[in-house]
Amino acid sequence: MNSELALIQSLRAIATHPAARGLADDAAVLELGGETLVLTKDMMVEDTHWLPGQSMADVAWKLVAANLSDLAAKGAEPVGVLLGYSLGADDDAFLDGLQAALEAFDVPLLGGDTVSGGGARTFSLTAIGRATHTPVPSRTGAKPGDGVYLCGSVGGAMMGFEALTGRGDADQNPFTRPTPLLAEGCALAPHVSAMMDVSDGLLLDAWRMAEASGVSLAIEGMQVPICAPEDRRADALRWGDDYALLFTAPTTAALPTAATRIGSVVAVGQAPLQLDGEWLSGPEGLGYQH
Amino acid sequence: MNSELALIQSLRAIATHPAARGLADDAAVLELGGETLVLTKDMMVEDTHWLPGQSMADVAWKLVAANLSDLAAKGAEPVGVLLGYSLGADDDAFLDGLQAALEAFDVPLLGGDTVSGGGARTFSLTAIGRATHTPVPSRTGAKPGDGVYLCGSVGGAMMGFEALTGRGDADQNPFTRPTPLLAEGCALAPHVSAMMDVSDGLLLDAWRMAEASGVSLAIEGMQVPICAPEDRRADALRWGDDYALLFTAPTTAALPTAATRIGSVVAVGQAPLQLDGEWLSGPEGLGYQH
Repeated sequence: MNSELALIQSLRAIATHPAARGLADDAAVLELGGETLVLTKDMMVEDTHWLPGQSMADVAWKLVAANLSDLAAKGAEPVGVLLGYSLGADDDAFLDGLQAALEAFDVPLLGGDTVSGGGARTFSLTAIGRATHTPVPSRTGAKPGDGVYLCGSVGGAMMGFEALTGRGDADQNPFTRPTPLLAEGCALAPHVSAMMDVSDGLLLDAWRMAEASGVSLAIEGMQVPICAPEDRRADALRWGDDYALLFTAPTTAALPTAATRIGSVVAVGQAPLQLDGEWLSGPEGLGYQH
Repeated sequence: MNSELALIQSLRAIATHPAARGLADDAAVLELGGETLVLTKDMMVEDTHWLPGQSMADVAWKLVAANLSDLAAKGAEPVGVLLGYSLGADDDAFLDGLQAALEAFDVPLLGGDTVSGGGARTFSLTAIGRATHTPVPSRTGAKPGDGVYLCGSVGGAMMGFEALTGRGDADQNPFTRPTPLLAEGCALAPHVSAMMDVSDGLLLDAWRMAEASGVSLAIEGMQVPICAPEDRRADALRWGDDYALLFTAPTTAALPTAATRIGSVVAVGQAPLQLDGEWLSGPEGLGYQH
């Protein structure tokens, strides 16, 4: 939304710390003592970020997973999370999902705050991680000549969402209980030139990485691993919530974890993104813009 | 509220980290590398934590001040903050107040998230601080024989609130633009046996400190420095939002900053709190319970 873009630009302008360059679209990196901290904060709002009637346990899980995925993209191992929680219906279910996610990803709840109040409920999570490699990967380092890779696949969350809403019988877990690729992100961090998680759609996030790096990315759509029927490939490239890791690396890199090459970094062209040889005209329609 | 208490108890039960003992009522303390981090997270909800029509600049200021006050009580210097922001009316005013507070307290905005959605807006701030003294002061260390002290005063926020809402002409700033006692908290940290900020009312917070420490506190009401007319003393002892520092220390301690002795720590008696020689029967009516 335009108002949001303007606000973020204003926030960036008043942010005095270099880490705030990433405000609202990236994790913050903070040198402190001998450690490099990675800090993320994601919010979820009722009726915007989850469906009416959706399991609050799944909402809690996703709140944790989304933040940890931001750490994964920085090659950071989670140290703990802080929860901001609006009281309401199904608190017990939320706690069940929270506990399940914290156990699954082996991360402690350090503290937080609870509030009550009318209207749409808002949850907020802050995740604190410890960088396992410096410099910490960012979305700005893609270089012409690098390969473009995907660790994980896309489309599974889309199919899960459709099943959850009564269309089809695909596995709902990729939408309701996504898994952040923490081990993969840490393993990849020393090898990548740029990395981010795919949270809003592969093509949109690739567009953003290209813009941030001052290059163009040429993606071959057929090379992208999808977890969806072939006739849904175009949709799968534009659907978010999968938490795959999009990264660039020298094509000679010996990658320590399974990843699929889906394209190349090229010198900046007439647009940030080329799909199957065609320059895309703008980010509209490439993913979920919020 | 009972539902909130039950939730916090449940959250504490699933929290696996010792720092989570303080969930929702204290900052988290985290050892990381050679540093001791102090982490706070406070939320504010429209119509609950601020008045309809109140300046959004003041709301932003208070969001920052409330979190930094939690750091102050831990003797921690701020390293940065993460903002969770719900878009809505008066975004520019919010930014003005945010910028003013960040500059006033010399703390950078590191990152955060913005959301949009219907209903009551919720703001969230995470503050990251570096402990200047270990062990980090907590509310659990008060010992019989210690003195009870207040750094700062209470009642100013109450008077400011009344002026803001058309009753009286007191200075509104103690309510709208409170100042966390950061330098004082750092200076006091090596000398105190327990410390917390007075956010919900002096008597209520003293009750909580006594319970947490397994002692009783005997407060002399007339000794408490108030920033209000004398006939409002009883109210001033029960009003929050002043961000004074309540602490206990050996009576022989050479305190490095101005503070007023307001009572003594005694062995646990028939209640956690004694006011002017009378045991109080319960925390009800001693402050703002949320």
